[in-house]
Amino acid sequence: MKIPNDAKGVYVIAPTPFHPDGRIDDASIDRMTDFFIASGVTGITVLGQLGEAPKMEHAESVAIVKRVIGRAKVPVVVGVSAPGFAAMRALSRDVMGLGAAGVMIAPPNTLRTDDAIAQYYRQAAEAIGADVPFVIQDYPLTFSVQMAPAVIRRIVAENPSCAMLKHEDWPGLEKISALRAWERDGSMRHIPILCGNNALFLDFEMERGADGANTGYCFPDMLVDVVRLSAQGKRDEAHDLFDAHLPLIRYEQQPGPGLAVRKYVLMRRGIIASDTLRKPGAALTPAAREEVDYLLARLAKRDPRARV
Amino acid sequence: MKIPNDAKGVYVIAPTPFHPDGRIDDASIDRMTDFFIASGVTGITVLGQLGEAPKMEHAESVAIVKRVIGRAKVPVVVGVSAPGFAAMRALSRDVMGLGAAGVMIAPPNTLRTDDAIAQYYRQAAEAIGADVPFVIQDYPLTFSVQMAPAVIRRIVAENPSCAMLKHEDWPGLEKISALRAWERDGSMRHIPILCGNNALFLDFEMERGADGANTGYCFPDMLVDVVRLSAQGKRDEAHDLFDAHLPLIRYEQQPGPGLAVRKYVLMRRGIIASDTLRKPGAALTPAAREEVDYLLARLAKRDPRARV
Amino acid sequence: MKIPNDAKGVYVIAPTPFHPDGRIDDASIDRMTDFFIASGVTGITVLGQLGEAPKMEHAESVAIVKRVIGRAKVPVVVGVSAPGFAAMRALSRDVMGLGAAGVMIAPPNTLRTDDAIAQYYRQAAEAIGADVPFVIQDYPLTFSVQMAPAVIRRIVAENPSCAMLKHEDWPGLEKISALRAWERDGSMRHIPILCGNNALFLDFEMERGADGANTGYCFPDMLVDVVRLSAQGKRDEAHDLFDAHLPLIRYEQQPGPGLAVRKYVLMRRGIIASDTLRKPGAALTPAAREEVDYLLARLAKRDPRARV
Amino acid sequence: MKIPNDAKGVYVIAPTPFHPDGRIDDASIDRMTDFFIASGVTGITVLGQLGEAPKMEHAESVAIVKRVIGRAKVPVVVGVSAPGFAAMRALSRDVMGLGAAGVMIAPPNTLRTDDAIAQYYRQAAEAIGADVPFVIQDYPLTFSVQMAPAVIRRIVAENPSCAMLKHEDWPGLEKISALRAWERDGSMRHIPILCGNNALFLDFEMERGADGANTGYCFPDMLVDVVRLSAQGKRDEAHDLFDAHLPLIRYEQQPGPGLAVRKYVLMRRGIIASDTLRKPGAALTPAAREEVDYLLARLAKRDPRARV
Repeated sequence: MKIPNDAKGVYVIAPTPFHPDGRIDDASIDRMTDFFIASGVTGITVLGQLGEAPKMEHAESVAIVKRVIGRAKVPVVVGVSAPGFAAMRALSRDVMGLGAAGVMIAPPNTLRTDDAIAQYYRQAAEAIGADVPFVIQDYPLTFSVQMAPAVIRRIVAENPSCAMLKHEDWPGLEKISALRAWERDGSMRHIPILCGNNALFLDFEMERGADGANTGYCFPDMLVDVVRLSAQGKRDEAHDLFDAHLPLIRYEQQPGPGLAVRKYVLMRRGIIASDTLRKPGAALTPAAREEVDYLLARLAKRDPRARV
Repeated sequence: MKIPNDAKGVYVIAPTPFHPDGRIDDASIDRMTDFFIASGVTGITVLGQLGEAPKMEHAESVAIVKRVIGRAKVPVVVGVSAPGFAAMRALSRDVMGLGAAGVMIAPPNTLRTDDAIAQYYRQAAEAIGADVPFVIQDYPLTFSVQMAPAVIRRIVAENPSCAMLKHEDWPGLEKISALRAWERDGSMRHIPILCGNNALFLDFEMERGADGANTGYCFPDMLVDVVRLSAQGKRDEAHDLFDAHLPLIRYEQQPGPGLAVRKYVLMRRGIIASDTLRKPGAALTPAAREEVDYLLARLAKRDPRARV
Repeated sequence: MKIPNDAKGVYVIAPTPFHPDGRIDDASIDRMTDFFIASGVTGITVLGQLGEAPKMEHAESVAIVKRVIGRAKVPVVVGVSAPGFAAMRALSRDVMGLGAAGVMIAPPNTLRTDDAIAQYYRQAAEAIGADVPFVIQDYPLTFSVQMAPAVIRRIVAENPSCAMLKHEDWPGLEKISALRAWERDGSMRHIPILCGNNALFLDFEMERGADGANTGYCFPDMLVDVVRLSAQGKRDEAHDLFDAHLPLIRYEQQPGPGLAVRKYVLMRRGIIASDTLRKPGAALTPAAREEVDYLLARLAKRDPRARV
Repeated sequence: MKIPNDAKGVYVIAPTPFHPDGRIDDASIDRMTDFFIASGVTGITVLGQLGEAPKMEHAESVAIVKRVIGRAKVPVVVGVSAPGFAAMRALSRDVMGLGAAGVMIAPPNTLRTDDAIAQYYRQAAEAIGADVPFVIQDYPLTFSVQMAPAVIRRIVAENPSCAMLKHEDWPGLEKISALRAWERDGSMRHIPILCGNNALFLDFEMERGADGANTGYCFPDMLVDVVRLSAQGKRDEAHDLFDAHLPLIRYEQQPGPGLAVRKYVLMRRGIIASDTLRKPGAALTPAAREEVDYLLARLAKRDPRARV
């Protein structure tokens, strides 16, 4: 099952659950995968930046992918970003063999010109093989690479295997509008645009033409609802639900502690057994933990389903 | 009136109002200044990054400062960041002569080591004169300079004229806690910490020990209330008010379009006459304008005083 | 006298001579200007990065330009890079009124996409006025902005007042070849390309199609000879002379101490009276001074005219 | 054989020879290793940045290390820099098991404070194991991380397994002086300092207190001689030899094409069979190749042993 050209909904970014001693927690992977499916996600992305991909050895990465694919009934995309094409190719080859729907590639943070970015994706696409669908990860806040809309169009045009945009530019609303306008006027072929950046602008991104979310906020079930309500044109209801979660979304979107927040909430929700991060990740301080608890308590009042 | 050592409350970051043709709009400066005072701010910072400081000629900068100081009844801090110490000294000298309470200095974005940052502030303090109180602007998102807590402590220790921290690191909650802990254990003298970054974390920053806000969100009157409620220990009320504004705060915090949002809302509120930005700033697109209108309409339902 | 479209030879980058107490040293400016003319330079660029431009107040900048223009018999280009267009426009206006041949503009180091770079130069050209010839300064090592050849071509195409490229990309030989190939095939109009980066690759840059040098190495008289020999096709002689200077060129090209090296040698040559830098520049350490002395002694053996 | 505390001489950075189709060329590895030993190097560093490390799969990396260790009679250091500690630990474990003398670790280019750099090396040292000697790679030009001298001292103090500094800061002469002064006054324990950056300042680095070179310039035999002459106090002879090579050193030091220059010369010297680079590396253009040929021809006149 490859990434479909009409992908929409929520491709949830899966964290990697660890035991307190740092070993991978298979039972939590299974429980989490089941939870995602039950929440209505339409896809799962594993081994992204917030899946702690760079902290895994190759064999571990392959094992995680195998486990999730074996259990999920939706397309599974695998992050394969690497400092060199050899590791990228090796992981792509192995996970596509296991049935992955495609791979996700972020640009190395040294790229500084449009030409350099376009060349990088051409070479990456060639390295992994022209038959492997890939997702562009456009996340300047983390990767320091800024892709103008014209660069994305160029990558899409030059690489038939480019299958999706994980849009997490910030600010990024005008970029969605620009890309969709080009699709309408025929100067760019359609690709699904799913949005990341912890959903901080999901409310308006949907209205600008995004097809859904590709992020891992600790209430992916809410993301599914926001995307659905928005697609149905129920603007106020979509925003009402979104706004109820925004204080926590904002708190979880912090670079650095954000992933610890996410794992902590997923643990409190009973989805994963431990909120352990591998190094160099750090646990929440007691003060931060109390703040998250407070946000959860407030959230439960506004979104009763969000009671933990 | 110099920056007091017990500064607290809201030092609002003032935008610079222009006529549609780009000339400075004196009447709007007056109206805006009066509005700030009526809103209960305890200080005003002019010519910050979002005051479009680099777009002003020296004489214009001096005229703006003179006008605001002449009208405000609170300390006025002036942004004097410049690529060289000559321009910094010239503006500091002129505005201190007009009665400014102090100046604000951001680090040039080429600094990369603790030593380099500390040296920069020593040389800047020497350049402007040891009698001129200065505010450290710690805003890595814009300036790409990361100041570890120990660097801030060092700047404070090495420069008696360091009078305040404009804290807008992100994530930054643990930094506030670290600095306050050092004040408590006596390893750092007290300086006021006022928070920027469009107030995106003001709710928790207050609880971590901040003294207030130093930002220009388009409802500074609300910032005054949040700071007051939080200082009074009315946690839930502070968060309730803050959360009502968070969708718009988040929208205004976007780098780039954020200032256009701010000016647009201030114009809609009748505080400034035009939302014009000088180049290279751009106006809001029609889509963005509609989104802000929608956010304002929603806000008015949750915070009736925020009706525009 | 505007920058001619067939500019060639050496546009020397002039340092700004200071008295030991930091005041501008007019007598040294005069002596230095005379020396440059006597050395055969075809132009002089003042207030560049290594002219310590950001350390000058506006009135000082104008006075320096006035003094050099009044004495030089060659085109004088003035660096006007600034964090905002207001200061850039003000300085351009004043120096063009004094008879400058054009201005030089470096990009702010926050630009990250081809579109952003092109837009910046359009807005800058508009700000200073369409009748003011400007030089693109392409120096990624210092400014962190990488301009692909296509971006330079675009700036040239979009701005009739773009009059020269100060090429100091590194590595940059292929860029010269690419631009010259476009001129030959008619897809780009001709502009002079003069090379900077302390002449570290001047030998080969000339052979790739550059028109000369635009840098301030402490023996500009040698640069004049290398450019002449190379233009005459005397390859071996050009390299022989260049190689004799390369150990010192390399030493002076160091970011940071490089300018102190340059001023120290110019002082030892009797061209300026003091090697003082304004802060944040630092003097050479005794060890570095001894190294420069040693390099000068060795140089004098290989290039007898370089005896100091 | 672990990295000795009195390491000196030349630890040559080995390129990775490929066949024209990109496969690893074992025969060239053997010939190159023998050549290094015959040249008098005191150590070999494999899988550095210019060993194209990120382009190798794990198994390939291990095979290369095994082959070199099996043949070399000197300590072999292995670059293990990786975006995560898992891959770093895996490679360290495997190569130490094969008899490597230690590993080399470069900082990820996101580190921006002294504390963050120090913490990174603590965690890396813990990840690879306290018994594994490691080399700090201090190369801001490539990695964008600036380590103040005090940070290096701190890393050395905090990690007993820190065994060497690969110094390639630029400018970096004062850093060597600072570190050696601290060793003399007892505030820092001794570690060997070997210099990289293609030896561009090796002449003076030796005089400032460096113990040798750790770079891969295409005439490592010359590096051995320069280090020896300098250590013997034969200053003029060391500089004479160095200066003869400087035009080519400078040409090879260019980021990007530099590695292609190096491989091309090693191929012309008959040491490796092909100058192939794996992607994203590119071959030299014909113009560049001609320039290198010209430099080699000139070099042969000044250093007869450098005839190729």
